Amino acid sequence: MYGLITHLTAHPGRRDELGLCLLDPNVKRPGCHSYVVAHDLDDADADALWVTEVWMSKAAHDAWSADIRESGVMRSALALIATWGDTVFTRPIGGVGL
Amino acid sequence: MYGLITHLTAHPGRRDELGLCLLDPNVKRPGCHSYVVAHDLDDADADALWVTEVWMSKAAHDAWSADIRESGVMRSALALIATWGDTVFTRPIGGVGL
Repeated sequence: MYGLITHLTAHPGRRDELGLCLLDPNVKRPGCHSYVVAHDLDDADADALWVTEVWMSKAAHDAWSADIRESGVMRSALALIATWGDTVFTRPIGGVGL
Repeated sequence: MYGLITHLTAHPGRRDELGLCLLDPNVKRPGCHSYVVAHDLDDADADALWVTEVWMSKAAHDAWSADIRESGVMRSALALIATWGDTVFTRPIGGVGL
């Protein structure tokens, strides 16, 4: 498996809109076991989102990335992102809900 | 929902053992929607684990924490942890696999 933990900052006041765009049910993620979008608890950082992902493999994730770049289906979401924090890349070994 | 993203460091060389302890199927997590244990990809940090969690509520998580403290069921896991990095507390809004 292949995992990513990413801290995103939306343009001021646009976090909720960005969250909904990332969760657009029209965006399919084949090979994705888990994809969670979260706000900072208590809105300590009011424009931040945390995205945690588990994919079947890096290849599945990379194929999806290439696909969305080509289709432009996430263009509206990408336009709402002010900064991408450093992504942590992981190798999930197991757990609940996978 | 209530989420946690935690960076743990095991005592040197004990990471794999710690990962297995955290995934012990005898440890039940009522109200836990997602619990993922991951290594650093490419073992850049060879003793590190990332634990990402989504619970039904903070109350469900806190009840579980109190329960494991009382039962001692995770004592062996806790003994393998050298340091706890800062935990990020989140409010998950949705996603795949919840």
